[in-house]
Amino acid sequence: MFKKVLIANRGEIALRIIRACKDMGIHTVAVYSEIDEDSVHVHFADESICIGPGPSKKSYLNIDSIITAALVTKCEAIHPGYGFLSENSKFVEACIANDIKFIGPSAHHMEKMGNKSEARRTMIEAGVPVVPGSPGSTNNAEEAFEVAKEIGFPVIIKAASGGGGRGMRIVYLENEFIEKFNMAKSESAVAFNDDSMYVEKFVEEPRHIEFQILADEYGNVIHLGERDCSIQRKNQKVLEEAPCTIMSQELRNKMGEMAVRAAKAVNYVNAGTIEFLLDKHNNFYFIEMNTRIQVEHPVTEMTTGIDLIKEQIKVAYGERLSVTSEELTINGHSIECRINAEDPSENFRPSPGLIEVYFPPGGYGVRIDSHIYSGYVIPPTYDSMIGKLIVWGKDRTEAIDRMKRALSELVITGVDTNIEFQREILSNEKFVENKIDTSFIEKEILKG
Amino acid sequence: MFKKVLIANRGEIALRIIRACKDMGIHTVAVYSEIDEDSVHVHFADESICIGPGPSKKSYLNIDSIITAALVTKCEAIHPGYGFLSENSKFVEACIANDIKFIGPSAHHMEKMGNKSEARRTMIEAGVPVVPGSPGSTNNAEEAFEVAKEIGFPVIIKAASGGGGRGMRIVYLENEFIEKFNMAKSESAVAFNDDSMYVEKFVEEPRHIEFQILADEYGNVIHLGERDCSIQRKNQKVLEEAPCTIMSQELRNKMGEMAVRAAKAVNYVNAGTIEFLLDKHNNFYFIEMNTRIQVEHPVTEMTTGIDLIKEQIKVAYGERLSVTSEELTINGHSIECRINAEDPSENFRPSPGLIEVYFPPGGYGVRIDSHIYSGYVIPPTYDSMIGKLIVWGKDRTEAIDRMKRALSELVITGVDTNIEFQREILSNEKFVENKIDTSFIEKEILKG
Repeated sequence: MFKKVLIANRGEIALRIIRACKDMGIHTVAVYSEIDEDSVHVHFADESICIGPGPSKKSYLNIDSIITAALVTKCEAIHPGYGFLSENSKFVEACIANDIKFIGPSAHHMEKMGNKSEARRTMIEAGVPVVPGSPGSTNNAEEAFEVAKEIGFPVIIKAASGGGGRGMRIVYLENEFIEKFNMAKSESAVAFNDDSMYVEKFVEEPRHIEFQILADEYGNVIHLGERDCSIQRKNQKVLEEAPCTIMSQELRNKMGEMAVRAAKAVNYVNAGTIEFLLDKHNNFYFIEMNTRIQVEHPVTEMTTGIDLIKEQIKVAYGERLSVTSEELTINGHSIECRINAEDPSENFRPSPGLIEVYFPPGGYGVRIDSHIYSGYVIPPTYDSMIGKLIVWGKDRTEAIDRMKRALSELVITGVDTNIEFQREILSNEKFVENKIDTSFIEKEILKG
Repeated sequence: MFKKVLIANRGEIALRIIRACKDMGIHTVAVYSEIDEDSVHVHFADESICIGPGPSKKSYLNIDSIITAALVTKCEAIHPGYGFLSENSKFVEACIANDIKFIGPSAHHMEKMGNKSEARRTMIEAGVPVVPGSPGSTNNAEEAFEVAKEIGFPVIIKAASGGGGRGMRIVYLENEFIEKFNMAKSESAVAFNDDSMYVEKFVEEPRHIEFQILADEYGNVIHLGERDCSIQRKNQKVLEEAPCTIMSQELRNKMGEMAVRAAKAVNYVNAGTIEFLLDKHNNFYFIEMNTRIQVEHPVTEMTTGIDLIKEQIKVAYGERLSVTSEELTINGHSIECRINAEDPSENFRPSPGLIEVYFPPGGYGVRIDSHIYSGYVIPPTYDSMIGKLIVWGKDRTEAIDRMKRALSELVITGVDTNIEFQREILSNEKFVENKIDTSFIEKEILKG
């Protein structure tokens, strides 16, 4: 096994990786920016190196500094965590050029799945369902109408150069198509000086369902079940859970099989996530692959008993997966609440500053992944997520009750947090009944 | 379900019970002594009542005060935790007399199993093996020799009125029996003014193995596997684990069956523990039954996924057990380290006082049950245990590594603790190889 690993990240995920390394007897090297000097990840690592000033570009995104730190400390491998350089293929290449193992997929995989249109093409070839849409753009309404009829209504018309909802129309009825297309086209021409349009299947009341994948160098690819990440605000996940209890075992098997097929199609190695949209009719569509560990990985760990970071490290070292599909069991239910230093009443404005008192919850079924402590100063420079509260219960009901209890114990003073906002979600009747989709927060929590 | 429960305890177990109640939507009433006013259990309960001055006799052991508190707050049930009044049958009777449900067994069970000689007799009748010994006491060496030959060597000769090792001899060889018996008898006559003696099988290199029992009012009795509690100092458990990995499945089934038989023999209801000694030849002997929840219950929760406190409450309310033997699976390995405020270098002298900094470990597989916080003052009045650190791993090796990591993260300053002592145990070669018995700490750790 590796003797020494550098962790090219900060915050809770740096701590998470250091913990896995310690559990494995691997020495750790932390890197930190000047303003992260007092961070827990710096203290818990066996060694630590300052890699530059606060702004990410000058430290956590600085490939040269990080590679130098790894060489100076004689690290054999680098774990990138999530965010920062975790999906940067140039970083992977720099590691390889310096004979350092990158704990993650190859640069090739990263590029292939990072490019959305190439990923889409690859999935279509592999027989993995993608959101049906026009093969290219057009400004011809009749041509677009033919495409729309082929993929089936409802459809969404999008400006090829668009964004932010402009030049966009949802069409439920065939006889409204031509009129709406032309309206969207005019809007697009004005807004973007481009009247070329796309037509896509409109996914109704979609859930965000993703499958955790693990793959080794020997062609073994397994999925570890799904996570339901439908509770989002502006495409940012807020609360995640595993499994998705409204899915039948048949649907789970089908989607899981497609996720494995997607990973196999590119000969993927290490941990990854295949993201799908699941509509209310149980149709599902590949949307993208994340070629790294994800924030919400703990809910999969809690329900499978598999330590995903350990698996990543082992696979990178050349070991086989420690578990097969047949051996794997999904046990109980897990929920993760992201704890952010932000003010929900002020449009979720980040709230950095001094944490006066931090008292984490404890007891049965409660896990905390956080780097904060009483007296810690949250810098304004990075993400507002200051920790993850994760619970396990024998079923979804017990997990919800336990999370509500754990949130009620959690004390963070000195900064604003979203703790109360998370409690609102957990107490919402539709959430409790698991009648949710990706618009849940907007429709149910923020509607007021 | 009960609407309101009073918790007749303090410290981590009070918190543990409050958490289970919150998970179940039950309102909680904490009781506290004057010096426990700032305790976490007081703040986390929905209501709290002071029941008297610091000394236990005047508060946590004061039946009248506690019953009054329950009546004033209209509690339907009382959970006694462990210690204090948890095995006091008069308290159970007082509850019943006041129409309050006691969350535990009946007064009858408590008395029957609390009286050691009656428990022993009951077990013999039920066919549960007990440590073989003379039926009564004698001062006749020849008579005792006959008994010794019948139960088989080695045997231990004990003074009927004895204690503290005086009037006690271990005899390995038949031809040494008469001489050693007479020596022990003389010693006993001088020390206790009584020369009547017992002869018992001497259990060689015993492990302390206990089985967790759950039983409902409908005759369902199950065991939830064993705990190995051999790591003791002066009969006080220090570190516990589940399962006991040196046991074969056959032995486990046999002992588990006996544990269930023991509970059934007295028509036991609620949670209980059947304690055995297991010798190096895989002979096992019932030693006693604990008719309450135990400090080390979390290791069973971590490996079975069953919340034992919840089960206790449900059973007391008249519900059936939520799980059957067939449904139960033992998953992975769990270890608990008791964290004590004490100074191992000064003969484990308690170290009460102000906790300046408390930083609990976190991450995957780590559970903390503790009532302390930065700024908490440990009173000198009660037990020195200030928390329990519990880990789960997929096997014993992973659990040991994770516990070592978790202990390395745990920061408690201001008072002395046994954290380093626990790390010594976990790093000891014999412990790692699971070559332990109840003399492990004395022989391996304290020998120096």
